[in-house]
Amino acid sequence: MDFGSVIGIVMSIGLILLANKMEGGHIESLLLGTAALIVFGGTAGACILQFPTNRIMGSVKGAISVFFRKKLDPNPTIAQIVEFAKRARREGILALEKEIDNVKDPFFAKALRMAIDGLEPKTLLETMETEMETVETEADFQMKFWEAAGGYAPTVGILGAVLGLIHVMANLNDPSKLGGGIATAFVATVYGVGLANLVCLPFASKIKFNAKADAIVREIELKGVLLIQEGVNHSIIEEQLKSYLDDKMKKKYEAQTAKGGA
Amino acid sequence: MDFGSVIGIVMSIGLILLANKMEGGHIESLLLGTAALIVFGGTAGACILQFPTNRIMGSVKGAISVFFRKKLDPNPTIAQIVEFAKRARREGILALEKEIDNVKDPFFAKALRMAIDGLEPKTLLETMETEMETVETEADFQMKFWEAAGGYAPTVGILGAVLGLIHVMANLNDPSKLGGGIATAFVATVYGVGLANLVCLPFASKIKFNAKADAIVREIELKGVLLIQEGVNHSIIEEQLKSYLDDKMKKKYEAQTAKGGA
Amino acid sequence: MDFGSVIGIVMSIGLILLANKMEGGHIESLLLGTAALIVFGGTAGACILQFPTNRIMGSVKGAISVFFRKKLDPNPTIAQIVEFAKRARREGILALEKEIDNVKDPFFAKALRMAIDGLEPKTLLETMETEMETVETEADFQMKFWEAAGGYAPTVGILGAVLGLIHVMANLNDPSKLGGGIATAFVATVYGVGLANLVCLPFASKIKFNAKADAIVREIELKGVLLIQEGVNHSIIEEQLKSYLDDKMKKKYEAQTAKGGA
Amino acid sequence: MDFGSVIGIVMSIGLILLANKMEGGHIESLLLGTAALIVFGGTAGACILQFPTNRIMGSVKGAISVFFRKKLDPNPTIAQIVEFAKRARREGILALEKEIDNVKDPFFAKALRMAIDGLEPKTLLETMETEMETVETEADFQMKFWEAAGGYAPTVGILGAVLGLIHVMANLNDPSKLGGGIATAFVATVYGVGLANLVCLPFASKIKFNAKADAIVREIELKGVLLIQEGVNHSIIEEQLKSYLDDKMKKKYEAQTAKGGA
Amino acid sequence: MDFGSVIGIVMSIGLILLANKMEGGHIESLLLGTAALIVFGGTAGACILQFPTNRIMGSVKGAISVFFRKKLDPNPTIAQIVEFAKRARREGILALEKEIDNVKDPFFAKALRMAIDGLEPKTLLETMETEMETVETEADFQMKFWEAAGGYAPTVGILGAVLGLIHVMANLNDPSKLGGGIATAFVATVYGVGLANLVCLPFASKIKFNAKADAIVREIELKGVLLIQEGVNHSIIEEQLKSYLDDKMKKKYEAQTAKGGA
Repeated sequence: MDFGSVIGIVMSIGLILLANKMEGGHIESLLLGTAALIVFGGTAGACILQFPTNRIMGSVKGAISVFFRKKLDPNPTIAQIVEFAKRARREGILALEKEIDNVKDPFFAKALRMAIDGLEPKTLLETMETEMETVETEADFQMKFWEAAGGYAPTVGILGAVLGLIHVMANLNDPSKLGGGIATAFVATVYGVGLANLVCLPFASKIKFNAKADAIVREIELKGVLLIQEGVNHSIIEEQLKSYLDDKMKKKYEAQTAKGGA
Repeated sequence: MDFGSVIGIVMSIGLILLANKMEGGHIESLLLGTAALIVFGGTAGACILQFPTNRIMGSVKGAISVFFRKKLDPNPTIAQIVEFAKRARREGILALEKEIDNVKDPFFAKALRMAIDGLEPKTLLETMETEMETVETEADFQMKFWEAAGGYAPTVGILGAVLGLIHVMANLNDPSKLGGGIATAFVATVYGVGLANLVCLPFASKIKFNAKADAIVREIELKGVLLIQEGVNHSIIEEQLKSYLDDKMKKKYEAQTAKGGA
Repeated sequence: MDFGSVIGIVMSIGLILLANKMEGGHIESLLLGTAALIVFGGTAGACILQFPTNRIMGSVKGAISVFFRKKLDPNPTIAQIVEFAKRARREGILALEKEIDNVKDPFFAKALRMAIDGLEPKTLLETMETEMETVETEADFQMKFWEAAGGYAPTVGILGAVLGLIHVMANLNDPSKLGGGIATAFVATVYGVGLANLVCLPFASKIKFNAKADAIVREIELKGVLLIQEGVNHSIIEEQLKSYLDDKMKKKYEAQTAKGGA
Repeated sequence: MDFGSVIGIVMSIGLILLANKMEGGHIESLLLGTAALIVFGGTAGACILQFPTNRIMGSVKGAISVFFRKKLDPNPTIAQIVEFAKRARREGILALEKEIDNVKDPFFAKALRMAIDGLEPKTLLETMETEMETVETEADFQMKFWEAAGGYAPTVGILGAVLGLIHVMANLNDPSKLGGGIATAFVATVYGVGLANLVCLPFASKIKFNAKADAIVREIELKGVLLIQEGVNHSIIEEQLKSYLDDKMKKKYEAQTAKGGA
Repeated sequence: MDFGSVIGIVMSIGLILLANKMEGGHIESLLLGTAALIVFGGTAGACILQFPTNRIMGSVKGAISVFFRKKLDPNPTIAQIVEFAKRARREGILALEKEIDNVKDPFFAKALRMAIDGLEPKTLLETMETEMETVETEADFQMKFWEAAGGYAPTVGILGAVLGLIHVMANLNDPSKLGGGIATAFVATVYGVGLANLVCLPFASKIKFNAKADAIVREIELKGVLLIQEGVNHSIIEEQLKSYLDDKMKKKYEAQTAKGGA
């Protein structure tokens, strides 16, 4: 579970509602079914129209992945590649056949399988890069869905506010209802701006960042398999793959391998 | 027929009107010929001025394709390419001559014909890539038309609202008409914002997504023909082309070929 | 003459004024010299400050080209290249010397002359690509001028409105003049938003689209000359150049050559 | 002196003030020290925070260059390169040693010196391209400074207006002061929007356009030196370098060289 | 300490508050806990939701680096590389082993170590470029965090204002409280717009500019090591690395080396 995501969404919505309460506002006055219908219905409709039907479910998955996701960890991956490189130099690349079942990421397994099967590096590279693009396209659609929703929500919120104002203005003869009417009209704006900025746009970015983190691990896996296939020395492979790690991860990696090697 | 598109557009416009009705609004007060004339006329005029005349009809086709379109399916295409590869290895590439009539996509047929005619891979690749760009340019124009319309509509709507407000303000001496006048002025904004966000911008994105989906199938076809021409083994071709499929499609492909092979 | 451009601009401005009249507005109340002075003067001044002096006249030419322009037609160009290819294969590339006078586009003539003069393909390609970039830079400046104008106009319009409102607000003691003053202030907004969305931005896009259409013809010409120089067979050249045409143009080309060949 | 820049800035600000006067506005009411303090101080502070300290002075230089700048002229440069090419073919590249003092642009002189010193073309190209990037980075910073200022000014203007409105609203019990207060608050908006659109953004664009024009001359110089080093014929060099000139410049060049050759 | 950053932030916020005071505003009326809770809490929450948890601390580090940072200086780096090149030509590259401890930047040390260990230039280049990308990704996250905060703050500020207005409008029956209520509602806008434009966005840009300045030094280091490995003459290396310096830095470098050589 991604606690950062939970804390973030609870914090932003919670503090805003709390502040509103402290200033004397009534949360009930912000609960308005029709405004919700306009903003959520209009935004969802525009997104369903915009996206291919087979991508809609993916965007729900994307939203879930903001809170729950199986993250690829680069450190054990590098350690495993280094092990494989040692073994391949000692016993030949065919010896890795038995190791394939220990590989968790199917992308890594497929690349390794192709190397063991003796495919040319060029074919392997091309195929795995297409594979990576396909995976990234999926994440891209999830990201774009929430970005699009974050774009539509505020304008639909304004649409709702203008519709409310038209209703208020057309009945201007009773000024005592003016304030209440305007207040109601503004609720749609609150929903639209809030939905976009506290939910949709952060979702879109989180999905993109997660996809990029996974893409780096896949790059490490692909690079590792290609270097094993080339028969490069395992310590050079380790050095080259470690350059994908930031300082904190590098230190963690060194601590882990030192312990593992002890 | 693309049911997602129908559901999306009906849902967004329907729910907004429903919510407006529930709040006591009158749909009649939103029907205003002059506002429609301003928003639709102004937006259409700006787009007609902006786009080359021979592209205007294309954009109408693009709008139709949002609801009705013949989608290219990658799975039978890959299966067909694998069949062709087997046959070409057995009987030579000339044997594919008889298969050309079974090829539905003219792009695929043209690439295959060039391979059978013995053109160099470089010429084939260059020609077919130009062909792909030409097709993508057409889709791009359709997309840009609706994007442009989605950009003009809200500003033209604001133009309409300001024109209405000028009219109202110039007659401020009769305050009883103020509210009604402002309400009327706002209807142009509703039309502009609604047209842009519930119709034009989603249309533009859908056209782009559809074009991209077709482009991937064309990439598979071109890659396939080039690999057949190179004389690559059919199971490697299959593996390489399958990397264009996402997980769901891959499973479907495997299920289909398993059934087909049974 | 580009009738689409004429229809577009007349349609957008005409329909908006018509709708305004139908709603009871007076066109006279929209004619306001000071607002025009602010919006047109301010926008023109900002553009003159922004653009190199030798590009200002070019932007006027660009505006004229929106309505009147000599468009390059790809179909006769391809037909001509195919003729040249046939002749060059029969009689040698020097035989094209006599044909140069029949070439209308100076870009095409220059490329052909370089090929006849026996320059290396690499030098020819480099020189003509620089030439293309130079032409595209000119069109780009025209486009950017109108885009910039379209960016400044609405903000200058708002500036005019705020100046008007300041004037109105400072004299708030006579409320009877309030409405009229606000109305007048808003006219600058109408001018700014209208100028940008009904004139400047569509101009910019049209100029860009026209430049791109011409660029494709130039690409065909350059590609054609290079293929002639390589001594490629004329039917392959035809096939390769036809891939630049969209479906409608392709059919037209085939109809024309069929008729021409009869 | 760049007269276009002077005319542009005088025209936009002058005409707007003139129109304001014609409508009965008082220029004194637009002179407001506190609004100026907010807009200029806030914008300058944000820019100083944003930019590296050693780039601040460069942006002042950039602003000066909008009005006064020594522009590189491509035509004499090409003529000089052609002369050098002739001489290098006749007397060897070392003969250009004596010509270096006649070269005004230090960039050109450095490239020529490296060619005379017999450095490899690859090293020469790499070094001079880095040099070009360094120069372009400087211009880029100047441009970005004014672009950033143009981005901050209107929002700081709005900040000033909102601060003014808060002050007005808190003292609503005396309605006679309402109008004047709002008018004063709006002056900050006028300053912000005007500063951005009539000064900062046009400055940024002009700096960019000027830098691009100089970059093209530097490209001509670098290309010329490389062609001289290769020992290419001077008339081919001339033809190749002329492709960087637009039509007007080309005609001017031909007129000048015809006169020079007479 | 980066004095420019301190001056910038003190100047913008200070002058705005001063001007507000001069106009008769009370700073107390701008201190509003609930508005601060909404803007800071909402913005922070959205950012925490958006960014991977392990990047949040990095963004705090980024903010600190705006005021305090250890900047890489290109001039001593170039001088050191030139020294290394001389020594490597005289005594062989292994002689640099003893110099590694004098190298401060770990990136430079790693590149040098790889060259001494005799790794192939291609492997060295690839590894160090990945290393650079990893460092740039870290800076990019810091930059994007503040950019995102600068994007959310104003909209959350508007959200706060609308919530305040809803509260005011719902209690319109007591008009004497209207002004104060609106004033309070506007404070959230001031916080949002100010936070974004005077803090977050300038932070983001400064972080980016600093990262780019460091990246240039790393490019110099990498280029230098590769040229030493190639065995290039030290004066050519010096010339080539100096092309990364702008005019001011070049003069400073020449002054320093002249003094050093004396």
